[in-house]
Amino acid sequence: MSEAGYPSPEGLQTVAIVGTGVIGAGWAAHFLRMGYDVVAWDPDPGAAERLAAFVGDAWPVLRRLGLAPGASPDRLRFAGSLAEAADGAEFIQESAPEVLGVKVALLAELDAVTPRDVVISSSTSGFTMSDMAAQATAPGRFVVGHPFNPPYLIPLVEIVGGRRTDQAAVAWAERFYTRTGKVCLTMDHEVPGFVGNRLQEALWREALHMIDSGQATVQQIDDAVTYGPGLRWALMGPMLTFHLAGGQGGMAHMLDHFGPALLEPWTRLAAPDLTPRLRDLVVTGVDEAVGDVPVQQLERQRDDFLADLLLLIEKHRRA
Amino acid sequence: MSEAGYPSPEGLQTVAIVGTGVIGAGWAAHFLRMGYDVVAWDPDPGAAERLAAFVGDAWPVLRRLGLAPGASPDRLRFAGSLAEAADGAEFIQESAPEVLGVKVALLAELDAVTPRDVVISSSTSGFTMSDMAAQATAPGRFVVGHPFNPPYLIPLVEIVGGRRTDQAAVAWAERFYTRTGKVCLTMDHEVPGFVGNRLQEALWREALHMIDSGQATVQQIDDAVTYGPGLRWALMGPMLTFHLAGGQGGMAHMLDHFGPALLEPWTRLAAPDLTPRLRDLVVTGVDEAVGDVPVQQLERQRDDFLADLLLLIEKHRRA
Repeated sequence: MSEAGYPSPEGLQTVAIVGTGVIGAGWAAHFLRMGYDVVAWDPDPGAAERLAAFVGDAWPVLRRLGLAPGASPDRLRFAGSLAEAADGAEFIQESAPEVLGVKVALLAELDAVTPRDVVISSSTSGFTMSDMAAQATAPGRFVVGHPFNPPYLIPLVEIVGGRRTDQAAVAWAERFYTRTGKVCLTMDHEVPGFVGNRLQEALWREALHMIDSGQATVQQIDDAVTYGPGLRWALMGPMLTFHLAGGQGGMAHMLDHFGPALLEPWTRLAAPDLTPRLRDLVVTGVDEAVGDVPVQQLERQRDDFLADLLLLIEKHRRA
Repeated sequence: MSEAGYPSPEGLQTVAIVGTGVIGAGWAAHFLRMGYDVVAWDPDPGAAERLAAFVGDAWPVLRRLGLAPGASPDRLRFAGSLAEAADGAEFIQESAPEVLGVKVALLAELDAVTPRDVVISSSTSGFTMSDMAAQATAPGRFVVGHPFNPPYLIPLVEIVGGRRTDQAAVAWAERFYTRTGKVCLTMDHEVPGFVGNRLQEALWREALHMIDSGQATVQQIDDAVTYGPGLRWALMGPMLTFHLAGGQGGMAHMLDHFGPALLEPWTRLAAPDLTPRLRDLVVTGVDEAVGDVPVQQLERQRDDFLADLLLLIEKHRRA
């Protein structure tokens, strides 16, 4: 079974990595771990040696998490050109520098040397595929597959097509990434920055403002996250976290209690109006996410996790 | 040795908790774990029973993390009035509802019934003490001591005084909280929302906007964080995380590479201009935080932690 026009992701053997900086090299390590042949290309002098060293450094931790049958760092090959990398690849992950002009030109080049039934995915942090594939003649197979650093450890990949992307290509990418152990967040339509990166970017921009205006130091920003809300976000996202902040009344009570605080200048970002419609969207969204698990039980789960996490962090900080 | 005018925090035995909702009850559990006598007050009917049940529920996980000598849930007492709670208390933690008028009135009441050498700390999520202590006649001992939920597990407490707060009271609060195992972020001047809450609030407001406009669902918001950047933030804050995203070039390379992205609409929050001054503040701030530890070594530390964290989360999700 395969998505219309695209070979089944199940039999796939060879992945091409285009651009081998931090993100591309991380993708290479991920696909090698998952038992694929990986062919990589990057125009930078010394890139081949750096990539091999990168994969070697990452391998022990990947072995600890578990390798797919046949997985080996020896199945990495560095190509001499973009065309050579694309030749024979059944999937291409592009991780070039985050400059729109560079992406547009590179995707056009990739388009020219890659068969039309090969899905080409971009690691872009936030450009839309509609913009990036502007010069492609076969834009149907271009998708965004945005990872988080390091791509060989952080599960999330955000998937979205452009205006001219086939829905089949989006579905294919989701099936393929899922098969390689990724957790997919597939979006129906393009939003600059996607979801995870938008949230992270909001926090990052507020942090830069605070440093710029002397409201906090770099060290205070990091301490505020790692000793504070960052501990909770490893298991529960912001919505579920605040559901628990509402006590037995959950998110409904939390919004009723903290709703007025959305008018306070507690960040530079103005909040939306907490209309009854938005309140209901949030409350029912949380209800759907947690099902009939009562807040008290969620609190016990959170506490058990946090206790283990605190002990784990203590061990790592000592080391 | 003590801060001028305030009894030494080392000999302190009795803490008063005013307001016993989720945060106040969490503080009660924390101080009981640390071996204090805790006297609590809340005007809500049934509050005494709910608090006792709350502490009982939290106790097993606190025991697992370690109790101070003599610590016992039996050292919790519920007072019949605010004055009775304040009587004999050597430190007061206020956790009333997040409504400025309520805080102002309650702090004025507390001020009237509490000796002047007792520090009174507010759990407010973001109001300034200058505003909250507006009607206090002895405002010098009023500080903000903002925790994160649950206060008995998340280490961070943000400390800041108001315009009329004694610096000695701020220093006393930092010494006392640190003694009880908290990690203190003490601010020199008032910023609405402090540091951790501002960062969290920026993310939360962007999330609400996305839900409001149909850009993401509640479930997608939480998945985007827990399977993505949330995993990294448990050990490394946003600044150190991006230092590693820059590869061997670190934060300097990251800012030079992603600087232009600050102009992209990747969140509703506009970024500050990345002036040479701001770039240097960030780069030197990271350099100070990491010392001479090379990026490669930080990557190994991050990866070892993330591997353990992924295994831990898998265990908890299965349970």
